[in-house]
Amino acid sequence: MKVLMSLLVLGVLSFANATEVLPSWNEGKSKSSIMHYVQAVTDKNSADYIAAKDRIAVFDNDGTLWSERPVYFQLYFAMDRVKALASEHPEWKTTEPFKSVLENNMTGVMKSGEHGLVTLVNATHSGMDVETFKSEVQTWLKSAKHATTDRPYTDLIYQPMMELIQYLEANDFKVYIVSGGGIDFMRAFVPELYGIPEEHIIGSMGKVHYKDGKIIKDDEIHFIDDKETKPVAIYRTIGKRPVAAFGNSDGDFAMMLYTEANKKHKTLQLYVHHTDEKREFAYDRKSHIGKLDKGLDYARDHNWTVVDMKKEWKVIYPFELEK
Amino acid sequence: MKVLMSLLVLGVLSFANATEVLPSWNEGKSKSSIMHYVQAVTDKNSADYIAAKDRIAVFDNDGTLWSERPVYFQLYFAMDRVKALASEHPEWKTTEPFKSVLENNMTGVMKSGEHGLVTLVNATHSGMDVETFKSEVQTWLKSAKHATTDRPYTDLIYQPMMELIQYLEANDFKVYIVSGGGIDFMRAFVPELYGIPEEHIIGSMGKVHYKDGKIIKDDEIHFIDDKETKPVAIYRTIGKRPVAAFGNSDGDFAMMLYTEANKKHKTLQLYVHHTDEKREFAYDRKSHIGKLDKGLDYARDHNWTVVDMKKEWKVIYPFELEK
Repeated sequence: MKVLMSLLVLGVLSFANATEVLPSWNEGKSKSSIMHYVQAVTDKNSADYIAAKDRIAVFDNDGTLWSERPVYFQLYFAMDRVKALASEHPEWKTTEPFKSVLENNMTGVMKSGEHGLVTLVNATHSGMDVETFKSEVQTWLKSAKHATTDRPYTDLIYQPMMELIQYLEANDFKVYIVSGGGIDFMRAFVPELYGIPEEHIIGSMGKVHYKDGKIIKDDEIHFIDDKETKPVAIYRTIGKRPVAAFGNSDGDFAMMLYTEANKKHKTLQLYVHHTDEKREFAYDRKSHIGKLDKGLDYARDHNWTVVDMKKEWKVIYPFELEK
Repeated sequence: MKVLMSLLVLGVLSFANATEVLPSWNEGKSKSSIMHYVQAVTDKNSADYIAAKDRIAVFDNDGTLWSERPVYFQLYFAMDRVKALASEHPEWKTTEPFKSVLENNMTGVMKSGEHGLVTLVNATHSGMDVETFKSEVQTWLKSAKHATTDRPYTDLIYQPMMELIQYLEANDFKVYIVSGGGIDFMRAFVPELYGIPEEHIIGSMGKVHYKDGKIIKDDEIHFIDDKETKPVAIYRTIGKRPVAAFGNSDGDFAMMLYTEANKKHKTLQLYVHHTDEKREFAYDRKSHIGKLDKGLDYARDHNWTVVDMKKEWKVIYPFELEK
């Protein structure tokens, strides 16, 4: 009888586990604010009910859905491509920012500033059709390793955020990514890794042109999806104001304010706050990458949800679940 | 018993009617090519099966889903706005193309060419946030009447094409509009009229900027969605190559070739050919609006579907059903 009871208890626990919402989130302010919001807007009898067609949720990517340290992962891809293509470009040995890349001088690369980074991206993300580029990214992701963890970059996604995406989708939200990252770079892995389709991925874009049935990538920036241009990109691609916005930096602040200014619907704004120097990275106001300063003050003053990664997340990465 | 049989027969007929696919299409080449295609790609046992996520269908709008004669309906909106705003712009009385608009001189307006039309659009589609613009379009559509039919513009949609959209959606296709028309103009009526959501509408765009929670329309063109830029717009917004493309002019030809060049999936290309001078308008190779010349030759040489509106459509407009 005792055994049976134990089995029953185990059974119940296992059942509860399987259906538990946001299992990697500790009970607390953030989890409860998310769940209250979703319950309020999906309950037909609630004054805050939102029709499914208007349940638009937008997520930043770097630092919100996966790590962005030491620097944005796409930059490592660009640098690895520079190394792979160097033999075809002897002039790179003496020209910045390529010289620093080839000498593995990260300080030199970062010193080249935004212009240098754009130069690296233009040189490595152009001259092929978008389908070829996609294959290059996918091949790279299979072998490249992250500098400080020595893991594939695709390991470094946030388990609690993946659960949040699934929870929203299960509640008929349309989940979009709105990232400063390159749209073609993200489209190479996001559909399979996050379960978000290509048409829900918004990002920075290079110029392209159409030729003979193909979209060819040119070596020029068309659109940087950051700060005040995030609402512009949302308007262009979605054409509806979101009701929920998720970010981690001042680069997401305008998109979150745009969401908050939705007069028709109850909204949710959530910042992922990088507070865990042990399991991930800790940074905010003074960081060059993922700076969160103005947004953090505003969030605290306006009752936005601010996730303390260290305290509120049971695990950061999916591989921690296997332990 | 005879009565019962008759009722039964009537019942069966009525049932057949209610579930008939593409009821406003006459049996024939076009209807059968559409139905064969959809059956082939949605049958799991077919070699041509396409997973639902990849069933992307793109439709031109002007001349494909609603009429575009005497000129694009959006141009009438722009001209009506010029008249409404004329008192604030005394200089328009002596400046083309405004002068011709205010004098109801359509020949003069058309003479101003593409530059003139862009000038009219820029002047009337800017200086307000996108939500205000949307209301202006909706208000206009409620009262404006089409020049030759004296009907609301929203009456002039093609019943057979609405049935086609519904048929594709019922078969899990994601239906997008990819039009040279303005994205904000279309977003004001397409969701309600066609049942296609804002995020599936791709079109030409003016520049905009974000300010204080709003997207403000500037008086400059950002992107013209026509010919070789239609594939570019599809790539940017959808990020997948379509499997089915529907158009009516050479402006849609590149988008249809881009679709045909899909190597992974069986594709369908369909041209609506304006052959019905009595019920609608008849035009193709020599038309200034909706010119169909190169595309028509290619379509005939490559086994694309070319719909003869006069012969293949039982009705053109929904109001004909009420007769």
